[in-house]
Amino acid sequence: MNKFLITGFSGFVSKHFVAYLEKNKIPAAVLGVDYSDTEIEKDNYKYVGMNFKKLNLFEKESLESVINEFQPDYILHLASFSSVASSWQDPVFSFQNNTNIFLNLVDAVRSQKINTRVLSVGSSEEYGDISPDDVPLKEDHQLYPVSPYAVARVSQELISKVYASGFKLNIIMTRSFNHVGPGQKDMFVISSFAKQLCQIKLNGGKGNIVAGDVSIIRDFLDVRDVVDAYYKLLVNGKVGEVYNVCSGIGITLREAIKIMCEILDIDVEIRVDKKLIRPADNNIIIGSNEKIKNELKWKPEHTIRESLTDVINYWMKELTK
Amino acid sequence: MNKFLITGFSGFVSKHFVAYLEKNKIPAAVLGVDYSDTEIEKDNYKYVGMNFKKLNLFEKESLESVINEFQPDYILHLASFSSVASSWQDPVFSFQNNTNIFLNLVDAVRSQKINTRVLSVGSSEEYGDISPDDVPLKEDHQLYPVSPYAVARVSQELISKVYASGFKLNIIMTRSFNHVGPGQKDMFVISSFAKQLCQIKLNGGKGNIVAGDVSIIRDFLDVRDVVDAYYKLLVNGKVGEVYNVCSGIGITLREAIKIMCEILDIDVEIRVDKKLIRPADNNIIIGSNEKIKNELKWKPEHTIRESLTDVINYWMKELTK
Repeated sequence: MNKFLITGFSGFVSKHFVAYLEKNKIPAAVLGVDYSDTEIEKDNYKYVGMNFKKLNLFEKESLESVINEFQPDYILHLASFSSVASSWQDPVFSFQNNTNIFLNLVDAVRSQKINTRVLSVGSSEEYGDISPDDVPLKEDHQLYPVSPYAVARVSQELISKVYASGFKLNIIMTRSFNHVGPGQKDMFVISSFAKQLCQIKLNGGKGNIVAGDVSIIRDFLDVRDVVDAYYKLLVNGKVGEVYNVCSGIGITLREAIKIMCEILDIDVEIRVDKKLIRPADNNIIIGSNEKIKNELKWKPEHTIRESLTDVINYWMKELTK
Repeated sequence: MNKFLITGFSGFVSKHFVAYLEKNKIPAAVLGVDYSDTEIEKDNYKYVGMNFKKLNLFEKESLESVINEFQPDYILHLASFSSVASSWQDPVFSFQNNTNIFLNLVDAVRSQKINTRVLSVGSSEEYGDISPDDVPLKEDHQLYPVSPYAVARVSQELISKVYASGFKLNIIMTRSFNHVGPGQKDMFVISSFAKQLCQIKLNGGKGNIVAGDVSIIRDFLDVRDVVDAYYKLLVNGKVGEVYNVCSGIGITLREAIKIMCEILDIDVEIRVDKKLIRPADNNIIIGSNEKIKNELKWKPEHTIRESLTDVINYWMKELTK
């Protein structure tokens, strides 16, 4: 039975990762860590043994002792302060809570001499300032990070590379594109739209949805395909390598809204709130998933319509609780 | 009269920067800051008014209040933990004392809304893993940092770029190559050789010098040319741009030793200490200084023989005090 340490355990992705282990009957001992208390439903699982520990990744000694005690075979590093907008408000906080916490983690692995494989989760934001001709973005594309958050993620990747090559740590890296799926907080765009649309449905099916620029094209990957990729990368990814985790398909936000309206059988008007339009945002971001497909026999299993249906169902359930 | 805030004031470069201002009769108010106490000779200067404040750049509130009080026109950021070797021993310390202190500094400028020009001093180490065909290295060459120190410097540069473009701070960046000049600590290669050679001279002119790989080629720039470049970049460098600060000339360490032996009129044997050979070090590093030459009418004024003569004179004086 393999041991998985998961950071950022209170988040949306970790829940799906644990569900993935269970669904695929992978016997696993999971230790989740997060800086905030988290309720876990230990008894829902047959194949996965779960434990949780409250841990601040800034406290290096506590981190080292947790790692030393647990001796993880795999570390899935999901902890991140992942809001681009907030990184403009407090760039120091964003940098510390992305780059420095990751550095503490890998340095704890180094100093404690733990033989573990680490998945460093990064972001498509790292590509930054791209031209529409550059899509689909491949991993060897040069990085031009344009936000404090993106800089923090590129720095994390550089640290990963030097710990993999210089200290021989088994680190595999991702650049993960937008996620979609049930349970995602409504600070993320699709989840925000879905929640608004469900509220309209519950209020009679007519209304307005507030949005930023709905003409932008993004690459959304279902969170269940994300965790499938993370598991395969943890187990079989090539050390020191970076992999895009994405659907390879672009969709405008307008199309996503249209599909959700069809699912809900409602008719809405889109009201643009200029405050929601990010300055200097890329019009189009699509990733190439050829590398992970070829090397790891991974492929997305969920269509965008399936994902959006599940997101809608999630919000309907939440809003009628 | 312009106000200069200089971080890392206790170091070798800052002394030469202040001497440069004085020599060129540039009226200036200098506030030096460093985490350790520093003795300054206030009365040696006619054109430069000097003050010193003990300051830890990690203490963000103190840093903000110093900046707010002094309202610098220029910030010369020399503070750095610049040892590559030590960065392999304690990568977290190296990262914090390069990247995080710089982030604190520019974020203090941002949050205090100070209108100042900042010189972000970086390193040729940022180029990292290069091929001999890549020299002389130009600023648009891709960066492949291979040590924790180099990663910290690249991260600093990425932060500079996002603060310049996103927050409209007036930041100019350098990638500075090896320095040579009187006053440099003997942890640096030329200064270490010079000190050993002077000791041999004082002991009768015969002996061994301990070295690593003396066949490697490096680009040494006299520290007085370095500070000339820094002044010109601070005043006239283009915001958001990176400039190599280098001689453009490569010299093997063996040649440097040979020249110093000629200056001292001694004959020595080079003993290779394998512990001093860095693994995976580049055989050749030479920078292109075309950009700074063309844009700022700067050029190196010291030949390597002049620089080495001054270094020898410095050590002779130190060793016979």
